[in-house]
Amino acid sequence: MINVGVIGCGYWGPNLIRNFNVLSNVELSMISDLDENRLTHVGMQYPNTTQTTNYKDILENPDINAVVVATPMSTHFPLGSEVLKAGKHLFLEKPMATNSDDCRTLIDLAAKKNLQIMVGHTFIYTSAVNKIKSLMDGGEMGDIHYVNIERVNLGLFQKDANVVWDLAPHDISMLNFLFGSKPCKVNATGGCFVQKDLGIEDVAFITLEYPDGRLANIHVSWLDPCKIRRCTFVGSRKMLVYDDMSPSEKIRVFDKGVDVQPHYDNFGEFQLLYRSGDIFSPHIDSAEPLKAEAAHFIDVIEGKAIGQSTGQHGLEVVQVLEQACESLKAGGKPLDLVYDD
Amino acid sequence: MINVGVIGCGYWGPNLIRNFNVLSNVELSMISDLDENRLTHVGMQYPNTTQTTNYKDILENPDINAVVVATPMSTHFPLGSEVLKAGKHLFLEKPMATNSDDCRTLIDLAAKKNLQIMVGHTFIYTSAVNKIKSLMDGGEMGDIHYVNIERVNLGLFQKDANVVWDLAPHDISMLNFLFGSKPCKVNATGGCFVQKDLGIEDVAFITLEYPDGRLANIHVSWLDPCKIRRCTFVGSRKMLVYDDMSPSEKIRVFDKGVDVQPHYDNFGEFQLLYRSGDIFSPHIDSAEPLKAEAAHFIDVIEGKAIGQSTGQHGLEVVQVLEQACESLKAGGKPLDLVYDD
Amino acid sequence: MINVGVIGCGYWGPNLIRNFNVLSNVELSMISDLDENRLTHVGMQYPNTTQTTNYKDILENPDINAVVVATPMSTHFPLGSEVLKAGKHLFLEKPMATNSDDCRTLIDLAAKKNLQIMVGHTFIYTSAVNKIKSLMDGGEMGDIHYVNIERVNLGLFQKDANVVWDLAPHDISMLNFLFGSKPCKVNATGGCFVQKDLGIEDVAFITLEYPDGRLANIHVSWLDPCKIRRCTFVGSRKMLVYDDMSPSEKIRVFDKGVDVQPHYDNFGEFQLLYRSGDIFSPHIDSAEPLKAEAAHFIDVIEGKAIGQSTGQHGLEVVQVLEQACESLKAGGKPLDLVYDD
Amino acid sequence: MINVGVIGCGYWGPNLIRNFNVLSNVELSMISDLDENRLTHVGMQYPNTTQTTNYKDILENPDINAVVVATPMSTHFPLGSEVLKAGKHLFLEKPMATNSDDCRTLIDLAAKKNLQIMVGHTFIYTSAVNKIKSLMDGGEMGDIHYVNIERVNLGLFQKDANVVWDLAPHDISMLNFLFGSKPCKVNATGGCFVQKDLGIEDVAFITLEYPDGRLANIHVSWLDPCKIRRCTFVGSRKMLVYDDMSPSEKIRVFDKGVDVQPHYDNFGEFQLLYRSGDIFSPHIDSAEPLKAEAAHFIDVIEGKAIGQSTGQHGLEVVQVLEQACESLKAGGKPLDLVYDD
Repeated sequence: MINVGVIGCGYWGPNLIRNFNVLSNVELSMISDLDENRLTHVGMQYPNTTQTTNYKDILENPDINAVVVATPMSTHFPLGSEVLKAGKHLFLEKPMATNSDDCRTLIDLAAKKNLQIMVGHTFIYTSAVNKIKSLMDGGEMGDIHYVNIERVNLGLFQKDANVVWDLAPHDISMLNFLFGSKPCKVNATGGCFVQKDLGIEDVAFITLEYPDGRLANIHVSWLDPCKIRRCTFVGSRKMLVYDDMSPSEKIRVFDKGVDVQPHYDNFGEFQLLYRSGDIFSPHIDSAEPLKAEAAHFIDVIEGKAIGQSTGQHGLEVVQVLEQACESLKAGGKPLDLVYDD
Repeated sequence: MINVGVIGCGYWGPNLIRNFNVLSNVELSMISDLDENRLTHVGMQYPNTTQTTNYKDILENPDINAVVVATPMSTHFPLGSEVLKAGKHLFLEKPMATNSDDCRTLIDLAAKKNLQIMVGHTFIYTSAVNKIKSLMDGGEMGDIHYVNIERVNLGLFQKDANVVWDLAPHDISMLNFLFGSKPCKVNATGGCFVQKDLGIEDVAFITLEYPDGRLANIHVSWLDPCKIRRCTFVGSRKMLVYDDMSPSEKIRVFDKGVDVQPHYDNFGEFQLLYRSGDIFSPHIDSAEPLKAEAAHFIDVIEGKAIGQSTGQHGLEVVQVLEQACESLKAGGKPLDLVYDD
Repeated sequence: MINVGVIGCGYWGPNLIRNFNVLSNVELSMISDLDENRLTHVGMQYPNTTQTTNYKDILENPDINAVVVATPMSTHFPLGSEVLKAGKHLFLEKPMATNSDDCRTLIDLAAKKNLQIMVGHTFIYTSAVNKIKSLMDGGEMGDIHYVNIERVNLGLFQKDANVVWDLAPHDISMLNFLFGSKPCKVNATGGCFVQKDLGIEDVAFITLEYPDGRLANIHVSWLDPCKIRRCTFVGSRKMLVYDDMSPSEKIRVFDKGVDVQPHYDNFGEFQLLYRSGDIFSPHIDSAEPLKAEAAHFIDVIEGKAIGQSTGQHGLEVVQVLEQACESLKAGGKPLDLVYDD
Repeated sequence: MINVGVIGCGYWGPNLIRNFNVLSNVELSMISDLDENRLTHVGMQYPNTTQTTNYKDILENPDINAVVVATPMSTHFPLGSEVLKAGKHLFLEKPMATNSDDCRTLIDLAAKKNLQIMVGHTFIYTSAVNKIKSLMDGGEMGDIHYVNIERVNLGLFQKDANVVWDLAPHDISMLNFLFGSKPCKVNATGGCFVQKDLGIEDVAFITLEYPDGRLANIHVSWLDPCKIRRCTFVGSRKMLVYDDMSPSEKIRVFDKGVDVQPHYDNFGEFQLLYRSGDIFSPHIDSAEPLKAEAAHFIDVIEGKAIGQSTGQHGLEVVQVLEQACESLKAGGKPLDLVYDD
């Protein structure tokens, strides 16, 4: 039985609380938030928990093994450090921190104390993304040439982060997970329109280059009239569209492609054969990814599973975000990505 | 009455022939193509024309005032030069030439001979693009923040041009026309997947910066499972989606936006008000743009109109294509665009 | 202040409880259900209410002015009668009862006791339906020729009612409300497929004829692969599609139609002019209709509003359902509808 | 080699001419039309044919074996009779005639002269309908419970036929072909709105009952803002949507259904299990159905194939149309369908 405390029950926290609460091997014992009204409201729904406006009460509670931090981005590092220093496993919302050095510090702290860090990169726990991974790993799609991602809608604008830090963590985490590798180059262009004075970008176009020349393009925006969550995976054998807005067909696999005939004729020509075939929408289990994520965190703590969205994974996402924003400020200059390992 | 000859009746030529043929003040007298079968076929449909496999017959015909060239890109410059040297007005398919120097030479030739050049940038003659221009110019959309364009589908691959030269001329011409200005910076990323050995890019992501910080992103691809022709215009007052694949609603205007309250309060905060309103799809006239384009060429020759897709317009498009490909080869390096004027 | 009790907090009851609970002039005091677990669960969310498994406790509570009944259809009449006999205003879920005689008895009871009955025909309280009504009443659409409704999806099958009694009440209530009249003829065809042995129809096609020759066709099904909620209103001046599944564009108004030129020429011909124009999607307020419905019930009780989905309205819907099923059993025989008034 | 003449080259005739012309074992020798301009135009495209404004020239030409009649509906019978009396095989556009007696007369004539009649029910020659047939016949869909068809759009209004005779022949022919049987009951409702004075229905809802209780509902309209061509096939094992307007996915097969557990428990209940599974869009060959239809006619004449859209098939379609309109005039009265065999 893992005893869990939660810091932050604003926008996202309640979802985490709800999912940790139903796990059979978890006792959700304490909840903290600065807002007393939120606390009272949540407390009524979870009468077996203790509520406090002082998160230190959670850290000082010797019964608690693990702490979930669902607070604004800028507090991830200070709160995460305290959690680890208090000797508790750490579940941290994404992005892991506001810069890669802070991520490294957290990882070191956890390593020294032999604690687990998990970052809340929810997408890699969705049925859809795991279905895509199995299709990619099974070879059905051939080599992945490139991925194109649209993640756009109107708002919500943030004051302490631009659209890249707000929306792109999903995509970078997903891509690193699916490719099983990390981008080696990044460039990004974009603009500050609504919050021009604050210099906060509300639209960006990011290109990532993964090993073996695989490309990914990510368009993130807070300024689009339509909510679009659409990823196109172009493989040498099949193509796949993952539309997260579709209620009934999140994944569509197109048996479409181009076959290159390797045989060159006298005139240096070669044949390109277009293939247009069946379209297949596999049934996707509608299980809530947060539940899988919460269960996974507990499994990792109990040594039953190897962590997926570990501190290392979270760091690598932040490194890409950092360099993407660096490139953005430099007008789209291509930048190399170098990792610690 | 303008007497017109046409060189090239392969893929696109017949459309031009059909549209020039119905103009009341045009006599379509000669057609040339290297393929005798094509010539015979076209000749049967236009019994009043003379056919020849030797395009020089057209150039040497003193009755002909204007020549339409609809041949592969690499022949645009040599054929265009000969047409102008023969003292005839020139209608040249897009892109105007394979490099900007050739474009300049054509422009100079025309200027010296007092002849008109028109480049077949069809999109700016469509009802949809003109509707967008009137909405933009009328101020209804507010300031245009950025434009996002998807122009993707499966194939057709070309041997003598990458996907940028094949598909992006439409977008650059349209954007220059709509903005009434030219991009000052470009960067582009992309990849060569199917024709890797030939180094011909089949996918590219191009970012253009127009004066006043307006952005445009263009995604062109020969490797997408879905045919998409979609441009999103994000204005400060309204947003607009132009979906050229929609049979009945090419343009949709969204009364959506973000209103920034300029008034800062004590805490340095300011208010963002989201506005979600009506959606409006104006009825778009389904007139064939090629007919408008052909008529416009004749009007320009007759001095009744000022040219829109002039040689200068064609040159400016080619300059952007050139620099975009330069950036593409340099891994997305941002490049300035400098124009002659 | 109206004191309200609720009988039934299974599937739909909690929604009513939630909405009545937030009304300023309502005190929600008692909740009843046969299922103790449901009661406990709901009680925790509404700590100011008393819970009971015996609905008679509500009837006998002298403080309670009005009772909301959200129980299975077959209990509407017996429970509704008891509520009225106990001298309390009655909110009854739809359909009002399983036959028109029971509806009449309830209406008579209420009249004698000077009590209000309201039937939970939610659709007429939606922003979308009220928008349609204002467009129709304002004359913008011209004469309504016919309405075509698709209300289909997979399941949920019921044991005590066929698909007509389950789904068509929405449509009949809406049509009667929009037309301000009642159908004078009905015929219906359909079939029993999954529950063949029980003789319970799972698909039906109902045609209603309203005064002045206006038609309505309603297709209801528990056996369709796609969830469709789509009503097409064909007017002489405009046409309108109401798609309740669309998150962002529930109503689309098409400036399309056919203009008949009344002038006949020598040959007895007349001109039909097709008109294809703009399409307009008015922004629809996303207010919850149940809240409007609950508030309306209270207003009616307090004499501040004239009831819309009254007992009379509920009766008229049941009369159509009765005759539709009669026609269904008779293989689609057209039947007249005669009303009491 | 079959020598073919064509009577009528207005709206549909040119398509038939084009397709017969490319068949290797066909000589298309004569074309007739009352309109000289049409004749001249078509003659230019098919220089090897003779044109005449007098269709009797075709009938009297001893070289001609088969005649294609593509003229208005009311002339099908008189022209068809003459063709058969002249001893030539007959290809007749749909519907076969304006009443069933005329159809029977044509069939008798052909039988006596040992000639073939084929009616132009194109849909049963489409790749899509044949794909559906193979899925149905292969048992993959289970028992077909019902079919729902929408065939609606704005216009084109006709003067000599109502919307049932105009649009429903497609559906009835397709259903008879797919089910391999004929409907035994029909009822239809509808209305005359735009051409009220002429009593020509512009919208109709037709229900057909096929043997074994299978239902089909057909909604035809000239008065809908959207062009819809959508057929939903509900089977006990799978469901299928055939959307003829979709450019890339005409057929979608849904692995959805309801499994009835035959085992009843103590309370007389039984279990319904909903199944929601994969969706599959088979690639549909885009071959032109008219070409297959034309080739089939020749094969039948040459004894290489057994006719599908024979005179008998055409008659059965007309019988349904006749009774549907009878029911329509009788306010939707259900009528039995009795066939000659």
